[in-house]
Amino acid sequence: MLSNHLQNGMETAKLLWSRLPNSDAEEDGEAVEELGRYGKSDGTSVESLDYEVIENYAYRQEQAKRGKLYTGYSVAVKWFFALLAGIGTGLAAVFINISVENFAGWKYSLTFDIIQKSYLAGFLVYMLINLALVLSSAYIITNFAPAAAGSGIPEIKGYLNGIDTHGILLFRTLIGKIFGSIGSVGGGLALGKEGPLVHTGACIASLLGQGGTTKYHLSSRWLQVFRSERDRRDLVTCGCAAGVAAAFRAPVGGVLFALEEVTSWWRSQLMWRVFFTSAIVAVVVRTAMGWCKSGKCGHFGSGGFIIWDISDGQEDYSFQELLPMAVIGVIGGLLGALFNQLTIYITHWRRNYLHKKGNRVKIIEVCIVSVITSVISFGLPLFRKCTSCPEADPNSGIECPRPPGMYGNYVNFYCSNKKEYNDLATIFFNTQDDAIRNLFSAKTVHEFSAQSLLTFLVMFYTLAVVTFGTTVPAGQFVPGIMIGSTYGRLVGKFVVSFYERLNIEEGTYALLGAASFLGGSMRMTVSLCVIMVEITNNLKLLPLIMLVLLISKAVGDAFNEGLYEEQARLRGIPLLESRPKYQMRNMTAKEACGNQKVVVITMLYKYNCFY
Amino acid sequence: MLSNHLQNGMETAKLLWSRLPNSDAEEDGEAVEELGRYGKSDGTSVESLDYEVIENYAYRQEQAKRGKLYTGYSVAVKWFFALLAGIGTGLAAVFINISVENFAGWKYSLTFDIIQKSYLAGFLVYMLINLALVLSSAYIITNFAPAAAGSGIPEIKGYLNGIDTHGILLFRTLIGKIFGSIGSVGGGLALGKEGPLVHTGACIASLLGQGGTTKYHLSSRWLQVFRSERDRRDLVTCGCAAGVAAAFRAPVGGVLFALEEVTSWWRSQLMWRVFFTSAIVAVVVRTAMGWCKSGKCGHFGSGGFIIWDISDGQEDYSFQELLPMAVIGVIGGLLGALFNQLTIYITHWRRNYLHKKGNRVKIIEVCIVSVITSVISFGLPLFRKCTSCPEADPNSGIECPRPPGMYGNYVNFYCSNKKEYNDLATIFFNTQDDAIRNLFSAKTVHEFSAQSLLTFLVMFYTLAVVTFGTTVPAGQFVPGIMIGSTYGRLVGKFVVSFYERLNIEEGTYALLGAASFLGGSMRMTVSLCVIMVEITNNLKLLPLIMLVLLISKAVGDAFNEGLYEEQARLRGIPLLESRPKYQMRNMTAKEACGNQKVVVITMLYKYNCFY
Repeated sequence: MLSNHLQNGMETAKLLWSRLPNSDAEEDGEAVEELGRYGKSDGTSVESLDYEVIENYAYRQEQAKRGKLYTGYSVAVKWFFALLAGIGTGLAAVFINISVENFAGWKYSLTFDIIQKSYLAGFLVYMLINLALVLSSAYIITNFAPAAAGSGIPEIKGYLNGIDTHGILLFRTLIGKIFGSIGSVGGGLALGKEGPLVHTGACIASLLGQGGTTKYHLSSRWLQVFRSERDRRDLVTCGCAAGVAAAFRAPVGGVLFALEEVTSWWRSQLMWRVFFTSAIVAVVVRTAMGWCKSGKCGHFGSGGFIIWDISDGQEDYSFQELLPMAVIGVIGGLLGALFNQLTIYITHWRRNYLHKKGNRVKIIEVCIVSVITSVISFGLPLFRKCTSCPEADPNSGIECPRPPGMYGNYVNFYCSNKKEYNDLATIFFNTQDDAIRNLFSAKTVHEFSAQSLLTFLVMFYTLAVVTFGTTVPAGQFVPGIMIGSTYGRLVGKFVVSFYERLNIEEGTYALLGAASFLGGSMRMTVSLCVIMVEITNNLKLLPLIMLVLLISKAVGDAFNEGLYEEQARLRGIPLLESRPKYQMRNMTAKEACGNQKVVVITMLYKYNCFY
Repeated sequence: MLSNHLQNGMETAKLLWSRLPNSDAEEDGEAVEELGRYGKSDGTSVESLDYEVIENYAYRQEQAKRGKLYTGYSVAVKWFFALLAGIGTGLAAVFINISVENFAGWKYSLTFDIIQKSYLAGFLVYMLINLALVLSSAYIITNFAPAAAGSGIPEIKGYLNGIDTHGILLFRTLIGKIFGSIGSVGGGLALGKEGPLVHTGACIASLLGQGGTTKYHLSSRWLQVFRSERDRRDLVTCGCAAGVAAAFRAPVGGVLFALEEVTSWWRSQLMWRVFFTSAIVAVVVRTAMGWCKSGKCGHFGSGGFIIWDISDGQEDYSFQELLPMAVIGVIGGLLGALFNQLTIYITHWRRNYLHKKGNRVKIIEVCIVSVITSVISFGLPLFRKCTSCPEADPNSGIECPRPPGMYGNYVNFYCSNKKEYNDLATIFFNTQDDAIRNLFSAKTVHEFSAQSLLTFLVMFYTLAVVTFGTTVPAGQFVPGIMIGSTYGRLVGKFVVSFYERLNIEEGTYALLGAASFLGGSMRMTVSLCVIMVEITNNLKLLPLIMLVLLISKAVGDAFNEGLYEEQARLRGIPLLESRPKYQMRNMTAKEACGNQKVVVITMLYKYNCFY
């Protein structure tokens, strides 16, 4: 695929140069391409893409040759491909969701059955299932699709900003991403499937834009209408938004994510098509959910369009609450920045030391992490003593302990008494979606003890840092929400005790905590805000989410850059910042070059290269 | 204020030219300014603004002189002003809302009291109060603040794209806008207060950016830190978003509106500050609403953060419903495009014929429109026969007929029977907010007869077209929502009868209708979608709103341009389109100039001008 691009580029370039050898407009474009090729021959895996339409004689002549019909046709194809990207991403998301929920559901129900007899056997089964799933994921990634490791968002961000990383949009990467994230998420690691889904959407869109993949003979000549990198990039932007829309079931959030986070080449007419793709995803996902409601999808049955509905939560807030909320924002900024910093260190260490030793070491590393995760998530709840159930509120519809085989609050893990539950198991020994739902849940005051929340926070934070950067597909959204909602709920506990008012819900603080951690780590504003509202279905908290995000982003920015920017830099993907750094204001070009070796591309070299 | 700008510009320009007389970078900037001045001396009221930072020797020297402290100070001031713009706009919105609701509430309760005795006296009082309010508004606009007429959004759009219309951001325009829209909306005309609020927000921000107004000695030297047009424009963008956030209580919608509709000069770091301003507005408005809940604001008591809450509406939808929803989209596109076209004709006629005759004619025109509106809104319900109340559902909490002095469904207008209501009066003889709430309301199947809805649609559509362009502040959002929700509810009635399923709500279709008309007329996508969700608090309908908007925008685009673009063109505000028209692809500069007189600005003229 890359060589294909390159060849096209060469041919186009030749055509251009034969026409207008002295045009200024091309010089820049060519220079960039030149540098890209230069870099490539040097062994680095980064290549430049040229998104600028070069308005020259040849281009104008080609435009003039094309009739109005052709323009109509090409617009129709663009929209049709946006539709296909939406449907494809929606279906991929549904497939991943159903698989993960079924693997996880089957795992937990089996484990619960076995621990009625023996805890040790239960633990072994639990650990082995996790290990098998994670191992399969790591095997796929290391042997089949190395570019599918990690979240993929930094690479996609790079691609949309004009930097092509080797292999990120291949067909094998797509397959690796889908099956890899089923394994890694189903295997209970401290990572999410949302980031990978964004990458999946981008892959699907890119493959469509190329008219299939040449390697597996799935290519078709008549689909190859997208001549320019620019059209392909537009479609990948659509795919990216589709990924977010499918991952969070948040269509508007998807559009904004693409707008705010990934594209620096935004065009206003693109918004319109991205919007369309997101709407298609919403309809596809909603249709699949409706189909699953009748029980045809196994353990995946409770899904609605909104993932963690807390619309029955807190309606109102008083001014006194703004202080603890600001505290949550500050904590989020600090912990988020710390998370970014720790992941930089650990990624650096992995790249320069551990992962140089080959695939075997990578797989062993993932397996060790999986076993540690299993031990902690199974073992720690055993050390917590059981809590007796609160008095049942018939209106809330929450049962304590929850019936076997169901989802919900108040997990009875090993408690012998039938009216007891284990609060740490409720969040730790559970699927991530359920754990978040429990943390966000309203009308469950003091369900979790401060001790359990703190234990979970420390343990899960450590696990998330350690897991980040292993050779499996890994998103940071869900772990971020888990971490954030834990300390949010902790603050909420104190607020409830301190203010002693009835309408304060701990779940509200958990939501704000989740927003604050994501804001402190990823540094997004509007898109994150919309995503948080869309996934929790509570518009009334919007101003509070906004304020918490403002604080956490501001605090985080004082320490380091956002997670994706830092990771992109570590991977050697150069991203142009939206504004120059302060110290650059007084610098001259001479100072910037300093002691580095400067490569001068003379016109002569350029001509030599082409002829 | 303008002359002030101009003088600053002259001085800066002199400095620049004395340094670098041959710089290419400035030539463009100066040429634009030159043209602007040229245009102005010619008598047209449009002036160019230069937003580009000119990186030259002088600029760099100034930057180098400034310490890090100064940079910090200027950033802090920018944020502080964004805060002030948010607070100011929020307070202005609350003031307008409270005033309008009190005037209207007082008017309706007085009229209802009087019509118990005499219909004629009731009508006269109703008409005279309306007339007095509208007259005061028209008087303020014609004699005090002519630039405050209309919605102001096309002008603000122009400003943010680099075109300054004379007088749109003056202090007197701000005052005229606030008091004018209280009069025109309180007086029951077919227009809204949302567009003017956007203008109000922009005015407040602009005045802050200039450090107050010089004319009324409210200026302060130490506040004049915003040296460049660019900083002022950023602040005005914040003000604009604040206006939308305050008008619809939709903070995210405000950010997106500013992003999608008004700025072509978007910078990513601006989003962050705009977001902050919107959050501040949300907090200010929410605080004021909370304060009003205890009954301190007279008739204004029912306001919450969400204007028209339909969160208890339809939860789900079936595939069969997509067809009528698509039909709503098509109707919206057609009616919206027709609305744009009719308003072009009527605005054209007004500008070239009617409004040339002086202020007296303008005032008389508004008064005639007011009387016609009063006659129709009072008279038509009299011709409808009363409908008997449906069987009361104790769970819905809706009383029929509604108790006197309250807001809600089922208005008993002249019905003698106590268990009857007048469906046309429920939407026509009511404040717009209440009418929309009634149209959106769930659990009120068949409250409105098809005949009443059709009558209202035709009459209100005509009134909205006629009212548009009169010399009062006038927004198009609320009339658009009224029109759209009427035919939406009409379609909903047929759907309910046809499919005969219980969970279909007419209110859902009313909401989709409102979205479709706004989409068909204003041609916004993401921001409108978010605004619709934020004002109705129903996230579950998001995919449907997206699809309806897509259809209505596509249908509307087939006929003409969006309302704001068309109006901007009529006002002679040149907006640069985001992409060139198809026929421009093959054109040369020679063809474009054609028969028009070409003004050539020689370098000599330029030098002569400055020295």
